[in-house]
Amino acid sequence: MTTLEIFYKIVFDRWNTSLKNCDNLLNELSDETLMREIAPGKNRGLYVLGHLIAVHDDMLVLLDMGNKIYPELHEPFLKAADKTVENLPSVGELRAFWKNQCAILAQKFESLQPEQWMEKHTSVSAEDFAKEPHRNKFNIIVTRTTHLQYHIGQLRLLK
Amino acid sequence: MTTLEIFYKIVFDRWNTSLKNCDNLLNELSDETLMREIAPGKNRGLYVLGHLIAVHDDMLVLLDMGNKIYPELHEPFLKAADKTVENLPSVGELRAFWKNQCAILAQKFESLQPEQWMEKHTSVSAEDFAKEPHRNKFNIIVTRTTHLQYHIGQLRLLK
Repeated sequence: MTTLEIFYKIVFDRWNTSLKNCDNLLNELSDETLMREIAPGKNRGLYVLGHLIAVHDDMLVLLDMGNKIYPELHEPFLKAADKTVENLPSVGELRAFWKNQCAILAQKFESLQPEQWMEKHTSVSAEDFAKEPHRNKFNIIVTRTTHLQYHIGQLRLLK
Repeated sequence: MTTLEIFYKIVFDRWNTSLKNCDNLLNELSDETLMREIAPGKNRGLYVLGHLIAVHDDMLVLLDMGNKIYPELHEPFLKAADKTVENLPSVGELRAFWKNQCAILAQKFESLQPEQWMEKHTSVSAEDFAKEPHRNKFNIIVTRTTHLQYHIGQLRLLK
């Protein structure tokens, strides 16, 4: 294995395991439980799930892999705080979005070769990337994996 | 920058930023707040902090960097559940341990060159490592960064 292949495996093992952790946890939590606040006065499970879908949707744009699948989630789950927006999707709808999005992301991610993950993501200019080559597509996966684990830690409290 | 240097930067930027996130959060939480349960019936902030120190102590062993600094935390913060052990260190003591440990880890980590992070960690045999070269020291940093973020997500709920 080359250095690149080793890193590819480390980064994607962590991403895929984290998604699996999240899936397993979501399967253990009922729709009713996900409607509860994680701690008194804090975000509900529903909001965290919608937030994760909105953030992962942004990854498609950052990775130059097309448009968001659920652009309608950007406003209520990224811009707005929980319990300030009416007519949110139901937990059941969000579960279906999550599942569909995970499948699409997996398919798109698998279409890229390890060396393509070394290329720049879309929010860095070519000029800046020349000076800061670590701002590549791998970096998006690494940062979003830690973001995902941050919120899994919170959802875990609903068990 | 070589591929190795780029990955070194991605991995350690994420680790160091996560430690900084945790430090900033701990500075915002009073000792009294850290004695509270994060959610009703769940772990207290104190326990999560002790748990992080115990897990980071294990990193020293896994990375072949010497002995644990606080071996006495292994039993109460890794083996035992919260609120089952008496005579735990105070929040003030744990804060001091955390600060000291972060400084020691930073010093030890900086002493290694990027290529040394490609070497095997201590819980994998040389035989297995030959087949699975991704089980290297970088991998320990990557997995412990996601572990840290999981618990930062929880501590954040105390704010």
